[in-house]
Amino acid sequence: MRAEIIAVGSELLTPEKADTNSLLITERLNEIGIPIHVKAVVGDDRADLESLLTQALTRSDLIVITGGLGPTDDDVTREAVATALGLVLDIDERIVERIQARFASRGLRMPDINRRQAQVPRGATVLENPNGTAPGLLIERDGRIVVLLPGPPREMQGMLDAVIRDRLSARAGAVRLFRRTLRVVGRTESHTEEAVAPAYAAWASGPVPISTTILASYGQIELHLTARAADADAAAAALDRAAADAQARLGLDLYSTDGRLLEEVVGQLLGERGQRIGVAESCTGGLLASRLTDVPGSSDYVEQGVVAYSNESKAASLGVASELIAAHGAVSEPVAAAMAAGICARARIDIGVGITGIAGPGGGTGNKPVGTVCVAVERPRLGSARTRVRTFRFVGGRALVRSQDVHAALDMVRRWVIETG
Amino acid sequence: MRAEIIAVGSELLTPEKADTNSLLITERLNEIGIPIHVKAVVGDDRADLESLLTQALTRSDLIVITGGLGPTDDDVTREAVATALGLVLDIDERIVERIQARFASRGLRMPDINRRQAQVPRGATVLENPNGTAPGLLIERDGRIVVLLPGPPREMQGMLDAVIRDRLSARAGAVRLFRRTLRVVGRTESHTEEAVAPAYAAWASGPVPISTTILASYGQIELHLTARAADADAAAAALDRAAADAQARLGLDLYSTDGRLLEEVVGQLLGERGQRIGVAESCTGGLLASRLTDVPGSSDYVEQGVVAYSNESKAASLGVASELIAAHGAVSEPVAAAMAAGICARARIDIGVGITGIAGPGGGTGNKPVGTVCVAVERPRLGSARTRVRTFRFVGGRALVRSQDVHAALDMVRRWVIETG
Repeated sequence: MRAEIIAVGSELLTPEKADTNSLLITERLNEIGIPIHVKAVVGDDRADLESLLTQALTRSDLIVITGGLGPTDDDVTREAVATALGLVLDIDERIVERIQARFASRGLRMPDINRRQAQVPRGATVLENPNGTAPGLLIERDGRIVVLLPGPPREMQGMLDAVIRDRLSARAGAVRLFRRTLRVVGRTESHTEEAVAPAYAAWASGPVPISTTILASYGQIELHLTARAADADAAAAALDRAAADAQARLGLDLYSTDGRLLEEVVGQLLGERGQRIGVAESCTGGLLASRLTDVPGSSDYVEQGVVAYSNESKAASLGVASELIAAHGAVSEPVAAAMAAGICARARIDIGVGITGIAGPGGGTGNKPVGTVCVAVERPRLGSARTRVRTFRFVGGRALVRSQDVHAALDMVRRWVIETG
Repeated sequence: MRAEIIAVGSELLTPEKADTNSLLITERLNEIGIPIHVKAVVGDDRADLESLLTQALTRSDLIVITGGLGPTDDDVTREAVATALGLVLDIDERIVERIQARFASRGLRMPDINRRQAQVPRGATVLENPNGTAPGLLIERDGRIVVLLPGPPREMQGMLDAVIRDRLSARAGAVRLFRRTLRVVGRTESHTEEAVAPAYAAWASGPVPISTTILASYGQIELHLTARAADADAAAAALDRAAADAQARLGLDLYSTDGRLLEEVVGQLLGERGQRIGVAESCTGGLLASRLTDVPGSSDYVEQGVVAYSNESKAASLGVASELIAAHGAVSEPVAAAMAAGICARARIDIGVGITGIAGPGGGTGNKPVGTVCVAVERPRLGSARTRVRTFRFVGGRALVRSQDVHAALDMVRRWVIETG
């Protein structure tokens, strides 16, 4: 069964307001195995809605329309749907009575315009709305189903659940959708795809077929796996196998097969080992500490952070010698290493991180363009092999560079901690 | 000119991910007077995209398509658009060279699949992408314009601005939409509305009518003013008058009439006065420092930050006496004040901030529930009136509480600095 969703309302075509009803509708339909192929938003305009619905009927079995069922002139969904389906609109007097009773219960008389809400395309099933005046409608036509629900989420949600339970679930078939998110760091989208794509065909053709979407955002890559199955356990097992296969292909670059973020993975590694971390940040200005402490319970392993923006504060709070900065520049591997050593010297920690770089937009040079960052990790207990330093060169604006800097630092910690068990 | 937007990507048809690119595209097109009539989302599916585009061409003059321009097999936008418009796809070797150079600059080889990104429907104009490998495309056909932009927002945004400036602006009509965002801190949405709503009617009925939307998000209130006018100066003057009226009604609670964020306003106040700030954070874990240093040029006024999560690190790095913590608890006004004094003692700064609170989900008590936060601001040069401390109680999850903590701290600094000139 192919489904699409149409949200009606001119306010959903402004820069401020996104259509969020469709997310819940997607979730509920996916749960009964119905994927969404197309979503659309249209203003309070009969012609546009007729055009969209007419086209949707050519490619989908189920069309869910939300909004435009109010009593006013700009609520055009009933008329547009009737026209698109070639149906006459009748006034259903039982609905009129129900709306009148609703008004009466609040001591009010029903305004005449509310009669519009009792218009029903001939042959449609009326769906009760316990939380408002606008009833929903379900229309079957040539094997297609069109469901009309009101726009306000608190009215729509219960009616959606009821129509799925009573009308759609039985037709949806036994197959459902199950999702898993895998996260990758340290490769580009194309290099991730190169490694994983050869497995797509096998995943898609197994007993539980799995489809894959690859997504890049803010210096991280995500693989979204979707399994279609009647049996939840079989779906979980197939997703486990695909995740294990991806892990084998991507190795340590795949850091999460259960949707956890990098800071959560690092946090768990540290927590399990009873290791405490401290961070010394220049260009990231507290973002690394903030990301680490986004995680509930991070006080168990985050000991301390220092934001040292100026050379003076690098000297005063981290003991970075001004001669070192003079010799190598503030953005250099020796200074990053000295920052990491500095945070280790001032707190009893197992891991210290130093980050110094150029986040932009200013401050870049030919040698060290915007996006250059040096990251050092110091592990005081490892003796002579206690320090690792790397230089990265990221592209993008200030926010994107800072975000990638933080990922790179978290990832260096993650790999080293895993390596040493 | 009628416009519609099509977002391409199967991830946008999941319950987790809404299409947000279209909000920015709507804003920018509205600014040049082009309204949006329909928005759609389609998966990585050629047939569905062809079907949507074919229909869009029957009712709109401008179709903006985002996403599906990546290098992989599931990036189908180029092929679908070429088919829908009946155009042949050629490989543009200049684009291949540009992508190769982009990979080479990061020391990488271009994977072969990236050649797909150099496919250009014959006759299309190539739109450069300074932030990624996927170029955009603009195609004119029978008086219709189809614009293809990449999906990642940081790539899309600059390209959108360029194509509007260079290609679309001249064809749009004379009437444009002009927007202004006013930002408010320290009041609820309803209290903001109460103060401002009496002015709405006057704003809406002036020679340049202004409509108002009020929006609450993450502990901040925004007023969005929209003016429709052919004359930019008249619109600006009308928006100025409305902003001044709102300022009179909201006083210091209105901190920005030009869209600047709180950290930018605080940064400018500090920069103008040559004052330097340092922050000592517990529950916010670096988020205040990170927000301050989000602003380009913040190194001019941000001196130092300390994240002191544990009691030991509050003692060691900020000199907060353990007796003080034992007597009042780590989340208390005396400890916040001692943290602010501690950061002032260790760095030469004009303003020190201390934040200690309970971000949750754990750690709350009957007396100090999750969301309790104590914020202290110390200004060493003000002698006996050097310290201010306040306790707030915010509601929401961990991220929302931390965000409100940071707003509260920034706002205390802002008001005090304005007060003392």
